Amino acid sequence: MESAGESIAPKRDLDALRAQVTRQGAVVRKLKQDGGGSDDIKAAVDTLKALKIELNRETIEQQESTSMGLSKFEKKVLDDLLLRKMFIIPSFEIYGGIGGFYDFGPPACALKANFLEIWRSHFVFEDRLLELECTNLMPEIVLKTSGHVDRFTDLMVKCLKSGECYRADKLVEDHVHQLIENNTTMSVQEQEKHRLTASLAESYTPEEIRAVIQEYQIKAPGTGADLSDPIPFNLMFQCQIGPEGNQIGYLRPETAQGIFLNFRRLLEYNAGRIPFGCAQIGNAFRNEISPRGGLLRVREFQQAEIEYFVNPKDKNHPKFHLIANTVLPLLTKAHQLTDGKIVHLTCEHAVANGIIANQSLAYYLARTSLFAVKVGLDMERVRFRQHLDTEMSHYASDCWDLEVHLVSGWVECAGHADRSCYDLTVHSKKSKVELVGTHRYPEPEKRLIIDIKSNKGLLGRTFKSDVACVNEILEELRSDSDQALAFEQELCTHGKAVLKSKCAEKQFIITREMILIKLVEVTVCEEKYFPSVIEPSFGIGRILTAVFEHSFSIREGDEKRGVMAFKPCIAPIKVSVLPLSTQESLHAYAHHLESAFAQNRVECRVDTSSVAIGRKYARADELGIPFNVTIDFETSTDETVTLRERDSCQQVRLPISDVVCTVKELIDETADWSCICAKYPVVRASE
Amino acid sequence: MESAGESIAPKRDLDALRAQVTRQGAVVRKLKQDGGGSDDIKAAVDTLKALKIELNRETIEQQESTSMGLSKFEKKVLDDLLLRKMFIIPSFEIYGGIGGFYDFGPPACALKANFLEIWRSHFVFEDRLLELECTNLMPEIVLKTSGHVDRFTDLMVKCLKSGECYRADKLVEDHVHQLIENNTTMSVQEQEKHRLTASLAESYTPEEIRAVIQEYQIKAPGTGADLSDPIPFNLMFQCQIGPEGNQIGYLRPETAQGIFLNFRRLLEYNAGRIPFGCAQIGNAFRNEISPRGGLLRVREFQQAEIEYFVNPKDKNHPKFHLIANTVLPLLTKAHQLTDGKIVHLTCEHAVANGIIANQSLAYYLARTSLFAVKVGLDMERVRFRQHLDTEMSHYASDCWDLEVHLVSGWVECAGHADRSCYDLTVHSKKSKVELVGTHRYPEPEKRLIIDIKSNKGLLGRTFKSDVACVNEILEELRSDSDQALAFEQELCTHGKAVLKSKCAEKQFIITREMILIKLVEVTVCEEKYFPSVIEPSFGIGRILTAVFEHSFSIREGDEKRGVMAFKPCIAPIKVSVLPLSTQESLHAYAHHLESAFAQNRVECRVDTSSVAIGRKYARADELGIPFNVTIDFETSTDETVTLRERDSCQQVRLPISDVVCTVKELIDETADWSCICAKYPVVRASE
Repeated sequence: MESAGESIAPKRDLDALRAQVTRQGAVVRKLKQDGGGSDDIKAAVDTLKALKIELNRETIEQQESTSMGLSKFEKKVLDDLLLRKMFIIPSFEIYGGIGGFYDFGPPACALKANFLEIWRSHFVFEDRLLELECTNLMPEIVLKTSGHVDRFTDLMVKCLKSGECYRADKLVEDHVHQLIENNTTMSVQEQEKHRLTASLAESYTPEEIRAVIQEYQIKAPGTGADLSDPIPFNLMFQCQIGPEGNQIGYLRPETAQGIFLNFRRLLEYNAGRIPFGCAQIGNAFRNEISPRGGLLRVREFQQAEIEYFVNPKDKNHPKFHLIANTVLPLLTKAHQLTDGKIVHLTCEHAVANGIIANQSLAYYLARTSLFAVKVGLDMERVRFRQHLDTEMSHYASDCWDLEVHLVSGWVECAGHADRSCYDLTVHSKKSKVELVGTHRYPEPEKRLIIDIKSNKGLLGRTFKSDVACVNEILEELRSDSDQALAFEQELCTHGKAVLKSKCAEKQFIITREMILIKLVEVTVCEEKYFPSVIEPSFGIGRILTAVFEHSFSIREGDEKRGVMAFKPCIAPIKVSVLPLSTQESLHAYAHHLESAFAQNRVECRVDTSSVAIGRKYARADELGIPFNVTIDFETSTDETVTLRERDSCQQVRLPISDVVCTVKELIDETADWSCICAKYPVVRASE
Repeated sequence: MESAGESIAPKRDLDALRAQVTRQGAVVRKLKQDGGGSDDIKAAVDTLKALKIELNRETIEQQESTSMGLSKFEKKVLDDLLLRKMFIIPSFEIYGGIGGFYDFGPPACALKANFLEIWRSHFVFEDRLLELECTNLMPEIVLKTSGHVDRFTDLMVKCLKSGECYRADKLVEDHVHQLIENNTTMSVQEQEKHRLTASLAESYTPEEIRAVIQEYQIKAPGTGADLSDPIPFNLMFQCQIGPEGNQIGYLRPETAQGIFLNFRRLLEYNAGRIPFGCAQIGNAFRNEISPRGGLLRVREFQQAEIEYFVNPKDKNHPKFHLIANTVLPLLTKAHQLTDGKIVHLTCEHAVANGIIANQSLAYYLARTSLFAVKVGLDMERVRFRQHLDTEMSHYASDCWDLEVHLVSGWVECAGHADRSCYDLTVHSKKSKVELVGTHRYPEPEKRLIIDIKSNKGLLGRTFKSDVACVNEILEELRSDSDQALAFEQELCTHGKAVLKSKCAEKQFIITREMILIKLVEVTVCEEKYFPSVIEPSFGIGRILTAVFEHSFSIREGDEKRGVMAFKPCIAPIKVSVLPLSTQESLHAYAHHLESAFAQNRVECRVDTSSVAIGRKYARADELGIPFNVTIDFETSTDETVTLRERDSCQQVRLPISDVVCTVKELIDETADWSCICAKYPVVRASE
């Protein structure tokens, strides 16, 4: 249904072009999934390639004029600041470090503690979620049942000489990148052909990526030796629990499983009522083949996950009315396949029109959006992208990612999936523990059900070891009244009938004496069901990375200075106290203020070093301290100090006795900076 | 130095007897360490055995009359409550669970969050510690260097038939226990002999425990098969990092190591100043052979550790004056070896008299004591026990455990060790990164130092591959001026001299032409040193267990009801709102109050069920909710409610509009219950 108009527009609409590519990608995936003919697939892939080339060219042309976020230079300055100020440090640094492991230094620890406190207050406290803390180590049976042991894999190739391993898609990407860099004379078209291969690498099958590796003659970096065929590598860390060596354990790859395992007790704790939500903040571990991108792809990371259990027949949310008018920036699957545009819709509209599958899912999208504002993300660089039908996990019925735009592109920072009842069903089946909710009818209801009476002794003697199979088929028959009654009719008519298993692998001849099927009326008061699960899942390190990028800027001036514009609620240090000189009397004022702030539980930092005040402001700005109190020579005369606001660099002069409560008001957002400027004289001070 | 008087006292002093046992135990250990004669050891062990038998008898006799803490019955009721109310749940319960893994349910999660917030506020915020968060997974080199790969072991025996493993000492304990139970006619003396063997089991060497197993003919439980010889089993969980399978990793057995690895950056962050402290809250993992005792010995647990770095020549603490008069309950090593009594000393006195090694250690003992009060431990059941010289880790110079008395006896909940400079030294040596502090002299100082000038070319030609060894010996010579000058004298006199390595394995003939040694005067401004580390280390699960036990009691009454008397600051839920009936108008008041509490960030729980009010109070008491608001039929008449205090069961009647601020005052401890009783009429209400 592509309109011809699209492709001849003189100035291309990038969003529409991107949508075309997405749409065509979906076509290719669908063809592959359905086992379409190879010619059809080839044709579809060729169209996709052509579109991608076009998109690449357009993107590069338009890139310079419409920059969003940091430049690559600014990103480099930010990364340097994060390390120098001990926000994020490579772990085991003195031993050379290992990819994918990072430590959080003092300012990041404090910031993260504030961040998690806001998360807990916003999600757990306000919505009365139950909170759990489960173990990081889990026995094999849990993750085998959840499907992680069999399916949680990436494709890997091995150097046949050194044994070193590489993530196949990243190797292709790196190879292409180098190929283009080394061939300065390569035509743009040629370049784009290679880039396309690289960008598709993540979605290739083992066979496809093997072909690409052969085509490019990609060898192992370092040794130059041949590479093994691509094989799936399980990303879970495995270890032995207990001393015997026969109990395999894994470090959990997600926190969700622990919640599912505790479902029965949680339901009891909640007095048997559904819906309810359960949250867990904790670590998860993935043995990434090629960790990269700082905190974006690491081997150990923190998650905050919510499992909201609902009746699959009623996914309304009791508090939906509170967010019905909240407007969300949505990149729907429909728009991804048509014009690629973000639409701004109210939750009410999105649910009413079937764009977001249900109220509970919409409720959490809205809550996440409010949370993103609270922690200071730039909402111009935030969107909710819906998964296409072809990319969704097999158990999910609708899924929306909170995507944040960073230097490295749009990055998924939180997922919101309707996981349906997959996990509870598989764990219930494996553990033989009933993990169900109960819906009690307002009034007892009369129902017609199939009743099967069987002569157990006769069945046993007749079918011996097959009797379990027979009973299983009879059990299935119970839930299909048409078939059951037809079977009874057959028995009545012929005195016997053939009972077939579902896939017709086995069949048994049943005689009249063996069973009697009747439709009987019963009174039922309740019905049991596997609850569906709506799962908002946050990657803490990724959102913090987004907070860092969205908060960072370089202040123009005599020297370019980095500023972290953290919102006061998450800033690791709320206020700095800066004596203008090293004179003892000024220091005394500083330490007096320090104690006053401490008594009021306000994180404060005193800088008594001998550097110039401008340098002190710069240090404070790099740590994202929102307010600075400067003690100068007037202080000893009239007991006043200046208070500087980090982002505007404005300063007011106020009595030292007013400082603590003024800063507290600013932090608690009971006053904003303009109020303070109205109350106290604004002063001009050079930095 | 035992006085004869002790042993003939008609009514034995249990403390003194215990001290005698400890003292004798130390004699035995010392003899073994020093490789004393086997007759001497045997004699000492016999004395020890006799003393233990006596102690056992006395203890049993006196036990009944002087009970401290919960009875075994009460403990059982508590354990049941903890599970039923979802405080602590065995992990993977639906799959049968695995020993040593527990999940924290909703009330325990909230309680732990409050607990950690108090810990962070008390230690990190008030003392301006730097906080770090390092990874759980660590590469082998870190834990090899720290000594954990080689030495972090327990003794284990294996069933030669099934391969099942047992912790050797626990197996002996269990065997002895069963032996006594199965032999009802066994004499008391005989019983005590066996009990002694069991209680010594933990300290046995592999050879000793092998002998005991043979003597008792202990077989594998279950199979009855023979057991292997005892072997040391490393308690760390091992896994592979990265896909190659050649990078061994371990789950950290303590959080401390991550802090040591970051020392250089931390020092820089602190502008090069020492002393400073760094804290880390995080998980640690130990693959216990026989986990037991609920949260007391688990395979995955949370620690909160502080590493306080000081100059080894000056371990004073800048805030010592604030705690100098704090009185601590100390079980010193001297008292453990004499009368076994706890002494109550001020920190000032203890440091001045060399009982606590230094101010910094005493400062943290006092801070821990204050913390224990804050979180509600019963200080009558708390003591600080000093390690005996014979039990201290080889690197520690003084060590005090916070011990808490529980049903299972005195349990170590926090350690306070002066770890000296062990860790920084070994990591510095291995990583070749300087992990040192710098002491700048107030004035430059003149020093005489040894200067060695060498003819490098000549040395190289002469000693070839041995030249590194020669240089190393010369380097050692630099720090021993007497020996250096004697060597120079030899060279002057004979034109040559013999240079020997420390253990004299190698020696080299050095000639006059090769080196020249002089004593020269230099001006030095600073000196570098490896900082000592004072380490307070808290086991969160153990302290929480102590909080549970110390908070629990059974209320006498019509039915015995468990009460968790949590302090309001750590209580998971602060207030419950209880409508007296299911009448809609009462529920409306309840939900109105619920919102008001939520707006004030007070955790509140509404119980609208139809059970009697007494049952609602009982439910609230089991969750440790300190205050209960009851909405009754008067409420709709005069807008008043009753407020009940959990521990006294007293109730006052107050206007509903006063409730939120009254409860907030009680939680913040700006008002106590007696103030409230003075302000509002106390009412009598049946429960």
